[in-house]
Amino acid sequence: MGTERDLQRLLDELGRLPGIGPKSAQRIAYHLLECDPQEARRLADAIIDVKEHVHFCSRCFNYATADECPICQDSTRDRTRICVVGEPRDVSAIERTGSYHGLYHVLGGVISPMDKIGPDQLHVRELLARLGSEDIQEVIIATNPNIEGETTASYLARTIKPLGITVTRLASGLPVGGDLEYADELTLGRAIEARRAL
Amino acid sequence: MGTERDLQRLLDELGRLPGIGPKSAQRIAYHLLECDPQEARRLADAIIDVKEHVHFCSRCFNYATADECPICQDSTRDRTRICVVGEPRDVSAIERTGSYHGLYHVLGGVISPMDKIGPDQLHVRELLARLGSEDIQEVIIATNPNIEGETTASYLARTIKPLGITVTRLASGLPVGGDLEYADELTLGRAIEARRAL
Repeated sequence: MGTERDLQRLLDELGRLPGIGPKSAQRIAYHLLECDPQEARRLADAIIDVKEHVHFCSRCFNYATADECPICQDSTRDRTRICVVGEPRDVSAIERTGSYHGLYHVLGGVISPMDKIGPDQLHVRELLARLGSEDIQEVIIATNPNIEGETTASYLARTIKPLGITVTRLASGLPVGGDLEYADELTLGRAIEARRAL
Repeated sequence: MGTERDLQRLLDELGRLPGIGPKSAQRIAYHLLECDPQEARRLADAIIDVKEHVHFCSRCFNYATADECPICQDSTRDRTRICVVGEPRDVSAIERTGSYHGLYHVLGGVISPMDKIGPDQLHVRELLARLGSEDIQEVIIATNPNIEGETTASYLARTIKPLGITVTRLASGLPVGGDLEYADELTLGRAIEARRAL
């Protein structure tokens, strides 16, 4: 009954991954059973290596293998702007747009009184230290446009503005290519409030 | 730039899995980066163990960790029936129905002249050997209801019937809970041809 146990264990572990339901877990497990042993080994190694090598950047708390992440180390970036995000994955999302060339600061979450997460549980103190020691002119707050993200954004704005640094927030509005008819009321409301002269 | 390399390698390997596109790969990669190291290690180990421990059953070519798979070893199964399937995953699919209690034989593929796969490339000879040595009364052909599956089914039927063994095929028809309006013509045609008296 060993097959069942090994296979079930793999199914269980795959099932813990985000977006992987029982059907997907089974497809992947069978793929792994059928594939070249080298391919399965490469996947297992990639998982282990990423956990062993990747830590947090000592400056911005993005993922890094060296002391600082590639973005903090990149001397061609605009070092007068910091974009504040909740998680490292948000850095990737913004990098993919190609629209931003400044630095980042990853909070490691957002303020959420329900989950007992306040500024002290986030990398807020380190952000304020950077604003004191680096030559920052603008902080762009790019937390998610939901309740926790907005709470975090207003807290940061209140804390940072008195330092004489410009604080901005990503625009809310209709998704590009989206359809007015299908927009939820909150988004549409924001889009109306934030309307721009053409 | 090590982060990029380790992360990219993980994204590449995840992207090779069936049903995992770039977005899913990224979600999973970030989950693995963020999760408890023990969880990532368990997944990596489960992948390696399944490849190391799981081989093919010497009797039916289902997955097995011992010489024979749990089903062939199970003395409570009906040993007069063999259900012939293309792949080990098909065994799981049929087992999940709970409607079948006989043995299996996994062909390891289906006849496909385009891919130069004929009976000799499949475990057909081993099936015929079993029909000679085991006390089999019925062979249920459960290859997929597509061209290759049907070709394989008719080949097996032609080969096995002369041995005086009953050969049956899974019924084709409308999916349970399906909608007549949305059924493709082939399925609907089959359902009409195979109509049953009530």
